[in-house]
Amino acid sequence: MTRERPIGVFDSGIGGLTVVHALMRALPNERIVYFGDTARLPYGTKSSATIAGYAAQITEFLLKRDVKMLVVACNTMAAVALPVVTGLSPVPVVDVLDAGARAAAGVSRVGRVGVLATLTTVSSGAYERALRIHAPELHVVAKACPLFVPLVEEGWLDHPVTELTAQEYLRPVLAQGVDTLVLGCTHYPLLKPLLTRLVSDTTVLVDSAETTAARVAAVLQAQDLCRPPGDMPPAHEYHVTDVPQRFRAVGALCLGGPLPDVHLVRW
Amino acid sequence: MTRERPIGVFDSGIGGLTVVHALMRALPNERIVYFGDTARLPYGTKSSATIAGYAAQITEFLLKRDVKMLVVACNTMAAVALPVVTGLSPVPVVDVLDAGARAAAGVSRVGRVGVLATLTTVSSGAYERALRIHAPELHVVAKACPLFVPLVEEGWLDHPVTELTAQEYLRPVLAQGVDTLVLGCTHYPLLKPLLTRLVSDTTVLVDSAETTAARVAAVLQAQDLCRPPGDMPPAHEYHVTDVPQRFRAVGALCLGGPLPDVHLVRW
Repeated sequence: MTRERPIGVFDSGIGGLTVVHALMRALPNERIVYFGDTARLPYGTKSSATIAGYAAQITEFLLKRDVKMLVVACNTMAAVALPVVTGLSPVPVVDVLDAGARAAAGVSRVGRVGVLATLTTVSSGAYERALRIHAPELHVVAKACPLFVPLVEEGWLDHPVTELTAQEYLRPVLAQGVDTLVLGCTHYPLLKPLLTRLVSDTTVLVDSAETTAARVAAVLQAQDLCRPPGDMPPAHEYHVTDVPQRFRAVGALCLGGPLPDVHLVRW
Repeated sequence: MTRERPIGVFDSGIGGLTVVHALMRALPNERIVYFGDTARLPYGTKSSATIAGYAAQITEFLLKRDVKMLVVACNTMAAVALPVVTGLSPVPVVDVLDAGARAAAGVSRVGRVGVLATLTTVSSGAYERALRIHAPELHVVAKACPLFVPLVEEGWLDHPVTELTAQEYLRPVLAQGVDTLVLGCTHYPLLKPLLTRLVSDTTVLVDSAETTAARVAAVLQAQDLCRPPGDMPPAHEYHVTDVPQRFRAVGALCLGGPLPDVHLVRW
């Protein structure tokens, strides 16, 4: 039964678990197979050609595990390697970048949207392109925030250093009068409480983990692919390319609880 | 002629260029072949087994380029993969960690030394072991500083965020009364001006780039391997595993000038 098959979710490492967390809340019956390329992370400062090669390898790994859908839970991969994934995949593909752009396009009242993301995502111009598909007149201000990922991985989610860094990154973006901010990297939802404090009450933060979960739910329903409720809660599995110790620690932050079933893939 | 052959220097990416810079000043006649594994950096948060595999691959690459000496210019590789490198190499091997420990062991007047390094280097306990070989009674306080590398790569060498981060990392180390601080990662020498401001006048900072260059000079002289002065300045070459754009930008910070001859290695 296709509906019984799992959803494959992948990321350069750990951040994609914020998408898994949102999926678990939105679609509690679905089984998830997660792949995190922890030996080669972070992707956000690497070249497009290198990232495309990695994305192809991960796509093939998940397709062999008989997934019914692929979720690209890494903005950097979505920005520079989406055609590689869709080209290889016979099942539907949802990606965080398109999901975030779709959601953000309808939100801004003043027609000015800020995008916070990694260096590679910002350099690719992918958010500008995706936002303009849905709202051609939108003014987009993209800002690379390369310190946010290491700050999250240090666990400094509400620390004066993180606040000072965020003020520095936000200053030129807010100066352009945006009223909507896309959190364009799957680590950034963990900084949402801190970022909310630094922007005005009328600024909307678009969390691409939540928007991706909503998009996955919509596609599954449209294609009649939702897994029916069972007697047992669904079993999830996690595959990583480096020893899972660190993945478990930071992963527990993302999921709000421990990760039971983590396997090491040796490439 | 063995003396004419180049010195092979390698690192997980860019930081090892601080060692190259120190070598160029200490040994201006030597030719250098540098290898930076920029597609797979950073190593500092990866497992020992993964890093050992990468170190073996790089060692074989440099040996094929007919080097007369190997310099492990990455503390993390020196901490967890040195036996792999020395096991494969018929030429002398000098590593940053041993060079820094040799220099630091003789410096402390109070017998208390702090080591600032990456997570993997600190977890390995390698600095404690290396320091105790040379000074068995030494009290060693090791502190992981995972944000220093991304802060250097952001170019925030003298920024309030970097100062606040350094204060946070230094506090528990200085509280133990150390009078010597080893900069146990090749990125950290770029933070030396800022760190110098945060410690007392009597605290000595041991810069492992400089100590490594001194150790290389000593080994070359002892084995009669120094390259004689020529009519032309020596030509250096740089090999990296990801497209060299970012390597050139951050590399110029480390070397204090542009990098002429950068080649892409596709693995």
